[in-house]
Amino acid sequence: MAVVTVERKVLEKNDQIAQQNREVFLKNRVFVINLVSSPGSGKTSILERTLGYFKGSVKIGVIEGDVQTDLDAQRIAKFNVPTVQIVTNGGCHLEANLVRDALTNINLKDIQLLVIENVGNLVCPSNYDLGEAVKVVVASTTEGDDKPLKYPAMFRNASVLLINKTDLVPYVNSNLDILKQNALKINPRLVIFLTSCATGEGITDWCEWLRKKVAT
Amino acid sequence: MAVVTVERKVLEKNDQIAQQNREVFLKNRVFVINLVSSPGSGKTSILERTLGYFKGSVKIGVIEGDVQTDLDAQRIAKFNVPTVQIVTNGGCHLEANLVRDALTNINLKDIQLLVIENVGNLVCPSNYDLGEAVKVVVASTTEGDDKPLKYPAMFRNASVLLINKTDLVPYVNSNLDILKQNALKINPRLVIFLTSCATGEGITDWCEWLRKKVAT
Repeated sequence: MAVVTVERKVLEKNDQIAQQNREVFLKNRVFVINLVSSPGSGKTSILERTLGYFKGSVKIGVIEGDVQTDLDAQRIAKFNVPTVQIVTNGGCHLEANLVRDALTNINLKDIQLLVIENVGNLVCPSNYDLGEAVKVVVASTTEGDDKPLKYPAMFRNASVLLINKTDLVPYVNSNLDILKQNALKINPRLVIFLTSCATGEGITDWCEWLRKKVAT
Repeated sequence: MAVVTVERKVLEKNDQIAQQNREVFLKNRVFVINLVSSPGSGKTSILERTLGYFKGSVKIGVIEGDVQTDLDAQRIAKFNVPTVQIVTNGGCHLEANLVRDALTNINLKDIQLLVIENVGNLVCPSNYDLGEAVKVVVASTTEGDDKPLKYPAMFRNASVLLINKTDLVPYVNSNLDILKQNALKINPRLVIFLTSCATGEGITDWCEWLRKKVAT
């Protein structure tokens, strides 16, 4: 019972800081997405494709969250956008205070869109508001069509679902209709894009959706 | 600081119960594996292949851990082996007390091998001993060769690595040598098997390794 209380306090404190982050983002007119998924679903590849698509026509900043290493930040470095790496040292999710601290290294006046790539984990990040406008969950076609049912909190709390690696559908036992149905059963309001970072499928639709959000 | 103390106490308590579980397993001569991975790496498929291989020649029991649903237990049901589903209701990993409670539904005298399929999560389950003999981590070729470096605790604490979905190597940007090197950099003692549940590659080697462990 003591542990539950501590956990609730941790979440309350996190939500307070997340709300402060959100106000800072609104004040600076920065649209913020919290990119979440299992390890290896393609979050960083989606981000690379997104940066490549906009080529500076939307000013983007990046916060990379990882348990260990700055390998993802290294991949992003070639796009020459403001990037901050958060290493959680074993921590299974980002928290609002880590994002707040990372913001001291990004000038929000210089960007219109901030992408926060969370730790690869389909469970824990679902509970932690970072102050984002939307959570975007990436699910790979290789992971099985049952994932929304088995990890419902993440799909319930997300606004957008990117079904990624569609190029692998012919080689895996995936039925996109069932995957979509399962996702919409958990969250009927999900905006869904089918994407492939190998072929580029869906990247234009996803990025143009983003561009509209940034403009408003 | 208070939170760290609580966490440490939680882990200490978990380790005590895990040790009790371990003694019960040893007394009953049951070899126990804790099967861990990202969501969708193929843990349940590996388990199906393993049960299909032994066809009762090794007596197996199963504990299924999931955040939500009993979909995995339903898949295992057709093999007609003792199976208990643990639903963590949002919890990101199994704990030793959950396994202890599940054991009241399995007669250990009837089995030689107990497979505990953990929640799909490459971070949190690494810290929680369940009383198993070995942790077996499954990594899919679709997840990227950098996963051992980015999620080191799981690979450090595992004894066996199954590199799964080898049939997809031609279609993804995966280099098995680099993946293996990265894993062995984190944990030089890892026993590695290359497996595919689609083609059956490596299943015999993996199962015969298991059979030897069960026999000793």
